[in-house]
Amino acid sequence: MSVAKQSHVVVLGAGFGGLTFAREFQHPTARITVVDRTNHHLFQPLLYQVATSGLAAPDIAQPIRSILADRDDVTVLMDEVKSVDLRRRRVVLGGEELDYDFLVLALGGVTSYFGHSEWEQFAPGLKSLDDALRIRREVLLAFERAETTADPELRRQLMTIVVVGGGPTGVELAGAFAELSRTVLVDDFRRIDPSQARVILIEGSPRILGHLPPELSRSAEQQLATLGVELRLDCRVKDVRRHAVEVEGANGPEILRAENIIWAAGVAAAPVTRALGVELDRAGRVKVFPDLSVPGFPEVFAIGDLALVSDEDGKPVPGVSPAAMQMARHVGRVIDRQLERGPAASRPAFRYWDKGTMATIGRSAAVAKVGNFEFSGLLAWLAWLFIHLLFLVGFRNKAGVLLHWLYSYCTYKRGARIVFGLDERNATNKLAGSERT
Amino acid sequence: MSVAKQSHVVVLGAGFGGLTFAREFQHPTARITVVDRTNHHLFQPLLYQVATSGLAAPDIAQPIRSILADRDDVTVLMDEVKSVDLRRRRVVLGGEELDYDFLVLALGGVTSYFGHSEWEQFAPGLKSLDDALRIRREVLLAFERAETTADPELRRQLMTIVVVGGGPTGVELAGAFAELSRTVLVDDFRRIDPSQARVILIEGSPRILGHLPPELSRSAEQQLATLGVELRLDCRVKDVRRHAVEVEGANGPEILRAENIIWAAGVAAAPVTRALGVELDRAGRVKVFPDLSVPGFPEVFAIGDLALVSDEDGKPVPGVSPAAMQMARHVGRVIDRQLERGPAASRPAFRYWDKGTMATIGRSAAVAKVGNFEFSGLLAWLAWLFIHLLFLVGFRNKAGVLLHWLYSYCTYKRGARIVFGLDERNATNKLAGSERT
Repeated sequence: MSVAKQSHVVVLGAGFGGLTFAREFQHPTARITVVDRTNHHLFQPLLYQVATSGLAAPDIAQPIRSILADRDDVTVLMDEVKSVDLRRRRVVLGGEELDYDFLVLALGGVTSYFGHSEWEQFAPGLKSLDDALRIRREVLLAFERAETTADPELRRQLMTIVVVGGGPTGVELAGAFAELSRTVLVDDFRRIDPSQARVILIEGSPRILGHLPPELSRSAEQQLATLGVELRLDCRVKDVRRHAVEVEGANGPEILRAENIIWAAGVAAAPVTRALGVELDRAGRVKVFPDLSVPGFPEVFAIGDLALVSDEDGKPVPGVSPAAMQMARHVGRVIDRQLERGPAASRPAFRYWDKGTMATIGRSAAVAKVGNFEFSGLLAWLAWLFIHLLFLVGFRNKAGVLLHWLYSYCTYKRGARIVFGLDERNATNKLAGSERT
Repeated sequence: MSVAKQSHVVVLGAGFGGLTFAREFQHPTARITVVDRTNHHLFQPLLYQVATSGLAAPDIAQPIRSILADRDDVTVLMDEVKSVDLRRRRVVLGGEELDYDFLVLALGGVTSYFGHSEWEQFAPGLKSLDDALRIRREVLLAFERAETTADPELRRQLMTIVVVGGGPTGVELAGAFAELSRTVLVDDFRRIDPSQARVILIEGSPRILGHLPPELSRSAEQQLATLGVELRLDCRVKDVRRHAVEVEGANGPEILRAENIIWAAGVAAAPVTRALGVELDRAGRVKVFPDLSVPGFPEVFAIGDLALVSDEDGKPVPGVSPAAMQMARHVGRVIDRQLERGPAASRPAFRYWDKGTMATIGRSAAVAKVGNFEFSGLLAWLAWLFIHLLFLVGFRNKAGVLLHWLYSYCTYKRGARIVFGLDERNATNKLAGSERT
């Protein structure tokens, strides 16, 4: 490739993978176009805090444009990816088509209902700010309606939240909802007692946080129980209907009635992979080569939740943000070598460096594993807090958000306990023919 | 009224008037019920900052319940006021009916289109958080679409914002939009130049901020022009259609094409007053007695934007938050005297104390009048900032929000430049049969 010609690198998605690539890859002969369907990069690990009224939406989101404002070689387009034509090297967006020399697929994941997409309307997932704000609104509204209803059965339903899936997101959500009802809301109502709210966490396998060692799972289960979360282990979801989950567990079949049901049980790759015509796993992830390129298309790479690649032990690299960022840097190096030395340049294999895993459960409750060290409780929580605050500060450069959050987190005030979007909610419900007002 | 019997005081609305009443009125024989259709009290003077991406929604809102959490004599209901039956002393809500001994009407105002309610869908007003978030979203989306469109005429329309009404809200909005495009967004786009965006402020009378002395209006007009706002004085709106305002000004009739049109030209009392069967002015405000009671119903009071009452000079008390709060305290004293001394107790007349007026235009641009002192520019702006920050701190007790806001306000970063609500926007548009995507 001659130095004179400009290469066009198209990046689809501005999550941790896509954004890291765009920020760190730079070459004098390359121009970069970043496409995302939203205008913001999301700090996904704290999304559950928006859903549970701990943070405001803008606290964990930043405009993609402003992050990349000083990069004249980068163009940001807010648009939908309609399809990708790998053979013609072309991406079709809602408003235009882009030809590329290199393509980085970084569109991330979507909530997966394992073939039961009809459950989505009754049990929303948590992937976007819209999801989080909708969950926040519906949970807060349920308490408001519990205060005004005279029907004891309806009140019980309104005061029950079911979280499906005992992975990190499910554990964080269940813990935060329990804290919300037992500490934040507890003095604010006159006719109901928010501490009587039920938060039920359903997990199909015998333990939560299956990616961690069993003793950390046990510790997390105890910490959740202390917060008041009801745990259903070895409990499978048979059906989800409006305000009801049918489960089958140790005690046989049961129907759990709950105003709010949150689905945190599965993630699949963004649906665009289905039409690529390349080999995928069951979750729709692209089975990439060790250099993260898509088989048959050395100029195309898949990273993050979209890519299936193994670590040194032969286990799939987990769908976490550090992995996506490491993949982004790797692809940046591969493309840089291609531009410097031409298509014959050798391509190193991606190697995942596992920095450790942690899951937070509530205030001063968490579990963590770093290398061979395992810890739980206050120490793990302080480690979690430190890492996330560090990230927030570095990423957002906003001491104010930090102080604000620390203050409300420590004083049990929830500054973001605000219901909005009612007008459009009503319009949506009208459209959906819902009987709810 | 015997001491043994409990009196029920019902407060409709938790804006500045209703909330101040609920916080400050307390009597051993009285229980209080506060009804609001939202779950939050809104710091309305900074609502334009949410609409223009300066603040997050939760920064200027606080749950009514948590403000009143330590008051066991106060019950908060999130519900709609359907009607008020003054004769039977009963309020009908969406979910229940409330009988009262005293009633405080504090439902505030709504945007008024002077008989042209069909304009509302094309030119939304700014009264609620939903309004502000919708305006923010549509303005940010317009810039995003301007970046991706190839049609120069559409691009011009997308980059034009019309604000109708040169009162404080219109002036603040126009100034903030001009700043947003000329400072915050300016480096973030590659295909458009946000500083070329047009912000047009339309005012029907010969000067903006008509409640201030003429020299302050002139100063505000100059400060707006410096920011890049196009002013149309003596300019009347003839019609509003989708993305178009038809005006008639000094240069004859003209059609202004703009993706976003914001209506800040009129306020009327909440529509519930229409069905009370008492005398109203044209804006639907209740013509109250000097003690703020509703003629014929000594146990019913109207305060804030809902009430028409004159100050000592015979001029109507303006619809500003200090007036609403002063009225709330007055009504509290009147009810207290009734409870202490019985129905025969004398009722003092309300007296409005005008603390001064100010309007902010942009960073270091404002006008203010306090007593006989008039000032403008940096000094007025510092006064505005000081008063509002003081209020935010006192009200919210959140040093973090303050620092956060000061930081982003001074560095021209807009932390809240986040688009969300797209899913429900699409559903709403589908419902409305809109051709927009």
